[in-house]
Amino acid sequence: MSEKGILVVVSGFSGAGKGTLMKELLGRYPQTYALSVSATTRRPREGEEDGREYFFLSKDEFEKMIAKGELIEYAKYVENYYGTPRGYVQRKLDEGKDVILEIEIQGARNVKKMFPDSLLLFVTPPSASELKSRLVGRGTETMDVIESRMERACEEAEGMEEYDYLIVNDDLEACVEEMHSIIRGEHRRSSRNREFMKEIKEGLEEMKRR
Amino acid sequence: MSEKGILVVVSGFSGAGKGTLMKELLGRYPQTYALSVSATTRRPREGEEDGREYFFLSKDEFEKMIAKGELIEYAKYVENYYGTPRGYVQRKLDEGKDVILEIEIQGARNVKKMFPDSLLLFVTPPSASELKSRLVGRGTETMDVIESRMERACEEAEGMEEYDYLIVNDDLEACVEEMHSIIRGEHRRSSRNREFMKEIKEGLEEMKRR
Repeated sequence: MSEKGILVVVSGFSGAGKGTLMKELLGRYPQTYALSVSATTRRPREGEEDGREYFFLSKDEFEKMIAKGELIEYAKYVENYYGTPRGYVQRKLDEGKDVILEIEIQGARNVKKMFPDSLLLFVTPPSASELKSRLVGRGTETMDVIESRMERACEEAEGMEEYDYLIVNDDLEACVEEMHSIIRGEHRRSSRNREFMKEIKEGLEEMKRR
Repeated sequence: MSEKGILVVVSGFSGAGKGTLMKELLGRYPQTYALSVSATTRRPREGEEDGREYFFLSKDEFEKMIAKGELIEYAKYVENYYGTPRGYVQRKLDEGKDVILEIEIQGARNVKKMFPDSLLLFVTPPSASELKSRLVGRGTETMDVIESRMERACEEAEGMEEYDYLIVNDDLEACVEEMHSIIRGEHRRSSRNREFMKEIKEGLEEMKRR
């Protein structure tokens, strides 16, 4: 069976625990997963290392990558570019690793266009009421804070239907294992195993001819 | 989240261990799964019990069920009818159980038409060479036996691409767990959780209006 890596896009609500979830997943299964490293034109902060937190590039280098189509997706926030270099992702996929990419909906759509086989996961709290209480907090937040969180959550919820799976983060432990088993299961999707099926059928044809 | 049962159709190569696999799955997770019980017009054999191995019906009763559309799929082999009663399956799905249905490709297609949300699994040995050696046996089979197995395998391989997942039966233990986690994972498919997503979005809208 083919064990080619799958490109896994992870989006979801802020505060749903995406960061912790992925750190835990990578920590537990370092042979299975690789985290995509983004490129950026912003300056490195103290303690950040080139190729670990980000690939730090000049504006000129970044724009050359755009021009050459070497980025799977990119965006500009506050005068700085952020993007996903295709080379790194492709190398890890070829090594058979599932590559995890944490991005937002617009980036996810671009990835899906370039890599139609990519798997889109959306991390969410277990219920609407749980989401609400996370947005509202403990009653100590200003209306401004709550409104800005809500606006963000609405943006994040947009396009939720375009994701393949919902990852319900209630209990971290259970959620990491569920995410892992969903990705493992996807490797068995028949659409990802056309080659295997072809071999089986050709094997049968060959026997017939003898 | 919705925990409505999923109708799981299992097909695959003869000798790939479907029977053992399903017995093991049901035995390990009796609260999660229910095995669909077929109806038939053949006479019960010694030790068989109505409603356990089969629902034993008269030809007249069976044909009435056909006429009323009470069978999800049916076929006639050697003067006897065999089919899947819709009532039993629907009842178990409503109880939240995943209902397992072991049938062949033609039946699988009919089920998919009636239950578009059903999940189609195809059980296969791990490789074409493994399949071959199972068909050929230990070199003690007559050519007739081998040829009839091959013919059957060719029929079974037909339509393999229409299944959602391949269940690779190499090691029984691993295979049972893999099948279980594929089915569990399917419950998280966003296409099966439209209601949950609607609730989340409505929850956000409602907060906005306050």
